[in-house]
Amino acid sequence: MADEKLPTRAEDFSEWYNHLVLQAQLADYAPVRGCMIVRPYGWALWENIQAALDKRFKTTGHQNVAFPLLIPKSFIEKEKHHVEGFSPELAVVTIGGGEELAEPLIVRPTSETIIGHMWSKWIQSYRDLPVLMNQWNSVVRWELRTKLFLRTLEFYWQEGHTAHATRQEAEEETRQMLDVYTDFAVKEAAIPVIPGAKSDAEKFAGADTTYSLEAMMGDLKALQFCTSHFLGQNFAQAFEVKYLDQTGVLQHCWTTSWGLSTRVIGAIIMVHGDDQGLILPPRLAPTQVVIVPIFKTGEEKASVLKTARELKAQLVKANLRVALDERDGFSPGWKFNDWEMRGVPVRVELGPKDVAKQAAMLARRDKPGREGKVSAALADLPATIEKLLADVQQSLFDKALTFRRTNTHETKNYDELKKAVETGFAFAPWCGSADCEAKIKEETRATMRCIPLNPADVLGNGAGSGGGTCVCCNKASEQRAIFARAY
Amino acid sequence: MADEKLPTRAEDFSEWYNHLVLQAQLADYAPVRGCMIVRPYGWALWENIQAALDKRFKTTGHQNVAFPLLIPKSFIEKEKHHVEGFSPELAVVTIGGGEELAEPLIVRPTSETIIGHMWSKWIQSYRDLPVLMNQWNSVVRWELRTKLFLRTLEFYWQEGHTAHATRQEAEEETRQMLDVYTDFAVKEAAIPVIPGAKSDAEKFAGADTTYSLEAMMGDLKALQFCTSHFLGQNFAQAFEVKYLDQTGVLQHCWTTSWGLSTRVIGAIIMVHGDDQGLILPPRLAPTQVVIVPIFKTGEEKASVLKTARELKAQLVKANLRVALDERDGFSPGWKFNDWEMRGVPVRVELGPKDVAKQAAMLARRDKPGREGKVSAALADLPATIEKLLADVQQSLFDKALTFRRTNTHETKNYDELKKAVETGFAFAPWCGSADCEAKIKEETRATMRCIPLNPADVLGNGAGSGGGTCVCCNKASEQRAIFARAY
Repeated sequence: MADEKLPTRAEDFSEWYNHLVLQAQLADYAPVRGCMIVRPYGWALWENIQAALDKRFKTTGHQNVAFPLLIPKSFIEKEKHHVEGFSPELAVVTIGGGEELAEPLIVRPTSETIIGHMWSKWIQSYRDLPVLMNQWNSVVRWELRTKLFLRTLEFYWQEGHTAHATRQEAEEETRQMLDVYTDFAVKEAAIPVIPGAKSDAEKFAGADTTYSLEAMMGDLKALQFCTSHFLGQNFAQAFEVKYLDQTGVLQHCWTTSWGLSTRVIGAIIMVHGDDQGLILPPRLAPTQVVIVPIFKTGEEKASVLKTARELKAQLVKANLRVALDERDGFSPGWKFNDWEMRGVPVRVELGPKDVAKQAAMLARRDKPGREGKVSAALADLPATIEKLLADVQQSLFDKALTFRRTNTHETKNYDELKKAVETGFAFAPWCGSADCEAKIKEETRATMRCIPLNPADVLGNGAGSGGGTCVCCNKASEQRAIFARAY
Repeated sequence: MADEKLPTRAEDFSEWYNHLVLQAQLADYAPVRGCMIVRPYGWALWENIQAALDKRFKTTGHQNVAFPLLIPKSFIEKEKHHVEGFSPELAVVTIGGGEELAEPLIVRPTSETIIGHMWSKWIQSYRDLPVLMNQWNSVVRWELRTKLFLRTLEFYWQEGHTAHATRQEAEEETRQMLDVYTDFAVKEAAIPVIPGAKSDAEKFAGADTTYSLEAMMGDLKALQFCTSHFLGQNFAQAFEVKYLDQTGVLQHCWTTSWGLSTRVIGAIIMVHGDDQGLILPPRLAPTQVVIVPIFKTGEEKASVLKTARELKAQLVKANLRVALDERDGFSPGWKFNDWEMRGVPVRVELGPKDVAKQAAMLARRDKPGREGKVSAALADLPATIEKLLADVQQSLFDKALTFRRTNTHETKNYDELKKAVETGFAFAPWCGSADCEAKIKEETRATMRCIPLNPADVLGNGAGSGGGTCVCCNKASEQRAIFARAY
């Protein structure tokens, strides 16, 4: 609750984050190392994220399914890059029903293998394609360094999996889903993102190409928001996923996969939050509006609560997610702090004078103090609040975009790059070699986040479109890349 | 698809079921013994079930959460009945990240233990109560005899968990959730159910009282539709879930849990299905209406498809779930069979003559042939179809209720009981002793399904309210029970 004071972000960003997640009751530590419990407030936020994405997935023709949690261990070994990437992270079931299993089972770290296995049975002909599937579930990866929402042994996500007749169609799907995620990030989470391609060192184990969205957190570090993989025919070959084409020839399918996890909750916290606590984007906030009644006498209480309840009913009718804080024994000031910490975008303060004037004071969470306050007539309140929420949503995005651009530095040489990654993103020509990438990582702790697909959009001033000479080895390079320290 | 002929129910009910689940593409067998893949059509049905229940859970004040999949093995050993019941069924993770674990972890078979552990941290005072939680997830129980949807190693469900200050409040919650499930069964699944109490032999491992809903399948066997458990203070004591009451005294909480799983999909198949395939209740059907265009010439095709597409748009606008079958290379007759097999409640047949008359032929799935057909004007179609769907929904329920009552037999002595369980449910006075229950089970393979809470409702003619003499031992007994062979 609001009683305990958060560390400030400047003091210790990491501790501010950890305390806030616990204090806002988004999540808690589980008794198993590295696992978390997502509490009602956190899960309600995740449900809103799910709804916003699921609608987009269905609009683009995907259907939800459920593949099993347990996968034969031998499956993971069929694709050579996949097994290298995932073997060290597996949780293995060796006992079932009191007996040692003949073949150990793994708890899925991701589902390409078992899906490939089933597709080889289901897909026969070009008429069966494309197959467009998605599932919402949890997966387990034995991570050593964990942090609530950002990296946990078990995490919640969706994993999309599609199979296509042609390379082109699969590549288009990979990019389409990156666009779907971008639309979600911008419009729902109010988070500006940089869509781009990963390097070979950073791509998914088993992918030909991995794309990601990269976002800048409040401490200037990068966070990979989600990924979309073009898997080529790698898994189709490993699991013999084939179809008869229109000329009667047997062909391997081309496949994709793409995922977004509960780590976006971490992103929302770290992009928008301030020293008072969370600031949730209105479109995803479990509670968009809180009404705090203010009164001293019993008579005032009766009159204020009556109006407050009517108001709540009106706002619910307008499809807003509303709470009315009737808790006894807490002052209005304490309640203001509590709801601010929980990041509710708009607060309605209602006292006897407001009722007399048939008005209420509105306070927006993203602008503290007087600046964010305005009095509004009760009669127009649903419409006024809807406009205010839209404005908060847009302001959060604008502020985050300005922050990212201000802290993204064009860097022409290695010295500039070293300095740049101390204070944000470096945006620099890169020759594309793994050696330069590894050297930069070792010497600066910054990784190659992505090669932006829309370089001109990174700084918004047209800079960055051309190439240059590699920031590391000085060879001519056609492309620029984002380097940053990352979660 | 519809090409393969189903066995009839009379020939082999079990094979009819197995074939139908595969043919309608509701689910498939996974490569791990006893696990299933829920395919898009099956998952869409489950999503509609989830939405209908989730709304009811939230209306009654419950909040969704997510507790971890992995539970320390020692947790399961803290409640003595719980460990006895679940130990033989556990899947155990012994290796994580390539190393043997110091303490093995179990894949949750249910979450009372880990939730109890966390509640002991979160609950301090009477002000924190009641705690009303639910989660949608999957659990793993190492079952030996499995059947798609009805009993699988991993299955999907919701598990509700609540903690209360008083015994009475917890008991009321247990019964309230049974009512919520009953409302869902009747109004959404169109399945009549018998709410009742389980015997000690059949109750949940760790419960004081288990209630269930029992339904009759098309082969006269019983299926437990869901359960609601009053857990007393058993788990609160095992995990020290305590609160300070209003007088400052430390008390143990009273807890409940309740669950409903993907086995209800099995119930829907077996209650409503016929020899042609599925019959889905309109309120849960992924597709409520299918439009099948009929034409011979290219000109007819153009005109019919134009009208069909307009019609689809109209029906979608009326919030109906509609498919338009434009597949090339299949005759209308083949399409009729295919959609019948998939259980779509209403079919719209649209040919050139219909278009000329601005009408369409409606066929309801639950009444085969001429009897279920009616011509309707296109102008009124959304309203006509909505009424028709409501009628199908009610008819399915009525038919299932009549079937259950017709096949439920009042039995006064042991001979009658033995005969009754061959042809349905036996409804008989039972003294309540475990010995009589065990003898009946051994000799007739029928189990005590429940002691109905509303005995007069079982047969609907007021019979069954009084007691009698125990059908097994002839002792005086106050209550009657349902005995049946069961899934």
